[in-house]
Amino acid sequence: MKHRYSTVSFLSDYGIGDEFVGVVKSVIRAIEPEVAVIDVTHEIPPHDIRAGSLALARAAQYLVPGVVLAVVDPGVGSDRRAVAVEVGSGESVLVGPDNGLLAAAVGMVGGADRVVELTNPEYHLPSPGATFAGRDIFAPVAAHLCAGVALEELGPRIEPSSLQPGMIPLPFADGDAVAAQVLWVDRFGNAQLNVGPDDVDHLGDRLRLVMGERTRLARRATSFAELGAEVGLVLDSYGLLAVSLDRHPASVDLGLSAGDEVKIEALGEGDEPTNGVGPVAVDINRGPR
Amino acid sequence: MKHRYSTVSFLSDYGIGDEFVGVVKSVIRAIEPEVAVIDVTHEIPPHDIRAGSLALARAAQYLVPGVVLAVVDPGVGSDRRAVAVEVGSGESVLVGPDNGLLAAAVGMVGGADRVVELTNPEYHLPSPGATFAGRDIFAPVAAHLCAGVALEELGPRIEPSSLQPGMIPLPFADGDAVAAQVLWVDRFGNAQLNVGPDDVDHLGDRLRLVMGERTRLARRATSFAELGAEVGLVLDSYGLLAVSLDRHPASVDLGLSAGDEVKIEALGEGDEPTNGVGPVAVDINRGPR
Amino acid sequence: MKHRYSTVSFLSDYGIGDEFVGVVKSVIRAIEPEVAVIDVTHEIPPHDIRAGSLALARAAQYLVPGVVLAVVDPGVGSDRRAVAVEVGSGESVLVGPDNGLLAAAVGMVGGADRVVELTNPEYHLPSPGATFAGRDIFAPVAAHLCAGVALEELGPRIEPSSLQPGMIPLPFADGDAVAAQVLWVDRFGNAQLNVGPDDVDHLGDRLRLVMGERTRLARRATSFAELGAEVGLVLDSYGLLAVSLDRHPASVDLGLSAGDEVKIEALGEGDEPTNGVGPVAVDINRGPR
Repeated sequence: MKHRYSTVSFLSDYGIGDEFVGVVKSVIRAIEPEVAVIDVTHEIPPHDIRAGSLALARAAQYLVPGVVLAVVDPGVGSDRRAVAVEVGSGESVLVGPDNGLLAAAVGMVGGADRVVELTNPEYHLPSPGATFAGRDIFAPVAAHLCAGVALEELGPRIEPSSLQPGMIPLPFADGDAVAAQVLWVDRFGNAQLNVGPDDVDHLGDRLRLVMGERTRLARRATSFAELGAEVGLVLDSYGLLAVSLDRHPASVDLGLSAGDEVKIEALGEGDEPTNGVGPVAVDINRGPR
Repeated sequence: MKHRYSTVSFLSDYGIGDEFVGVVKSVIRAIEPEVAVIDVTHEIPPHDIRAGSLALARAAQYLVPGVVLAVVDPGVGSDRRAVAVEVGSGESVLVGPDNGLLAAAVGMVGGADRVVELTNPEYHLPSPGATFAGRDIFAPVAAHLCAGVALEELGPRIEPSSLQPGMIPLPFADGDAVAAQVLWVDRFGNAQLNVGPDDVDHLGDRLRLVMGERTRLARRATSFAELGAEVGLVLDSYGLLAVSLDRHPASVDLGLSAGDEVKIEALGEGDEPTNGVGPVAVDINRGPR
Repeated sequence: MKHRYSTVSFLSDYGIGDEFVGVVKSVIRAIEPEVAVIDVTHEIPPHDIRAGSLALARAAQYLVPGVVLAVVDPGVGSDRRAVAVEVGSGESVLVGPDNGLLAAAVGMVGGADRVVELTNPEYHLPSPGATFAGRDIFAPVAAHLCAGVALEELGPRIEPSSLQPGMIPLPFADGDAVAAQVLWVDRFGNAQLNVGPDDVDHLGDRLRLVMGERTRLARRATSFAELGAEVGLVLDSYGLLAVSLDRHPASVDLGLSAGDEVKIEALGEGDEPTNGVGPVAVDINRGPR
């Protein structure tokens, strides 16, 4: 039995206010001391499978090959399945609940090769109660995988096609306009949309954003600093477009949250700036800076 | 002098907003580079010895053998003692202030074998001021213990019985009822009580919770998902009972905080559900889901 | 090419709610698995270069020699330079944006020996967008430095004197009084001033603090516990004076934030306590404890 993986990338909704994350790491280290645990994030909102799934998918292509431990698990202790999903011909294994959390990341890295259900108690901790599967099931399984335990030892094979699918909303065309959705608001208030540059290139460099009752002019950009006082549709670090301001949280100023719809339209007649150089939309709440 | 411990488990009220935790880890690594530091949590509320003590006790049985560094230290720089407490025949050493913080965890793992007061300045850092003992006393001591420095090198032996005791409240019987207390509210709003299943088994599977002026019916459960819209008294991952809701923070909905009293009673005549199957208490604020 | 540094100390304003910090660590580990990353803090307020610069300077003298990765970077993707700054005859290298963030820390450890601009794309990641230089430029550069890549490989030498300076405010004398400024409010509400003991020794052990319209009496102290109900000017762990209370956040009770001015004066006639022993200023909002 050879040492197989040396890194566990760990994402959860456990937060860092309680001892949950530390205990999971201790359980891993007690079983396999040579493993490094990298915290992806533990501040996924409680029970928010969608947010966890998207964060994991964004991170996926950058994670060190190894075990990915992901726990956002409102159904803990119920009959939802616990699974390990091998991807990349064994380069990595994702471990977590089968509730859609893993789906987008698995898709990002080429799909599932083999999947097992984690039913073999030999690789779990005995537990006084069933509410902390991260500690009692997922962490020891992750550590044993690192130590070289074979996937099939952990439980019976199940069909990859039986895994809960993820739900990533696709943008759709509305005439020339594009109906997009906010996937994620980051710490800086950038509101990432589910559209890439190609989806809106036909609308030009200056655009109109319709968010419920509100409408704002925006420009395409590749950095925040070039925005000045304008609203930007900035090419973000994942290759998607984000509604952004320079050094201000666009999500706050524009009232955007994850899941909100943003319709992206071409400029109309009345919107046209009088010259093509200056800002087309001064933020009247802040004024020029 | 052999390398003795390879893990420091670190709990504090330092928070992660300042550089305190990072500096402590740097001090440890500068003295003993081979040591891994596991963060148990640093978000204990400032100066809250009780909360820190309980978090440490919950984590204790899962921590990797080694050094446990715990700092919630409102008396820093005063005459409160700094101590190292050896437990488990030398399997682990707890390092921190002698203010009750360590007591519950020490008890959980079988009590103190040997205790020293950390008075030997040879194993401390010189410090410009006395307010950061985590950096100047506890961290270097933890690192030197890992490096193999003997306990008795750190300062004079003191009597284990002279350590500040912890205060974990015990439940008490009130006729057939049980007067319990909330030990801890976790990130998900579960309110852990100081009672285990045996303490309330005589009251049946459906119970009444009296919290100040409010009364709620509740049922015993082993997972959140089975609760539906009912209030649960769920067997938690530490073997205690927690007041919980499914996917909602019970602490918010029921107004519970650490230290609050919860009286657990048998159902009375008027409480009886009309049949034994359906929920006995629909949450009228949320309605059925 | 020898393995050169084994530690990356990492400070940023990325927060821990998103996956940014985890992704940066993954990028480092994928390039140089033997490196340990120590989080200094990631909760610098978004874009707050001053706060990041001060946190880094406070930590600097305690950091393990190696690479220091610091990212508070509102100008990301614009023409601000990305740099690596060698200090201590090669003992450490600071990597980050050239916007003043690194200046105070560089000064604390003796100034820059050599500086390069990070323009060599061979040591960067290809990136879908320009907004995450931490992942795409700074992290791979930090990892390659650890792996032994020479500084001059990363880009052209630039003049240390061309680096953006930091701005640490100096106190100034106002007659006998000292006009100070709050540098930092820590988690416990201690308001660190930009003055050391020597700056106010001529004013005695009991002093008057003038903060805007408000005036409070205070005493010099070396621990919080000795303050009782008085306001303290406590010698903090960095050798500066902090406005503090015992077990209460002085910043809240006295309304102090980073950047606020605090004038420190000698006691006047009317301020004089009737005896030299008891507290001179009972906090009437809290009363004696």
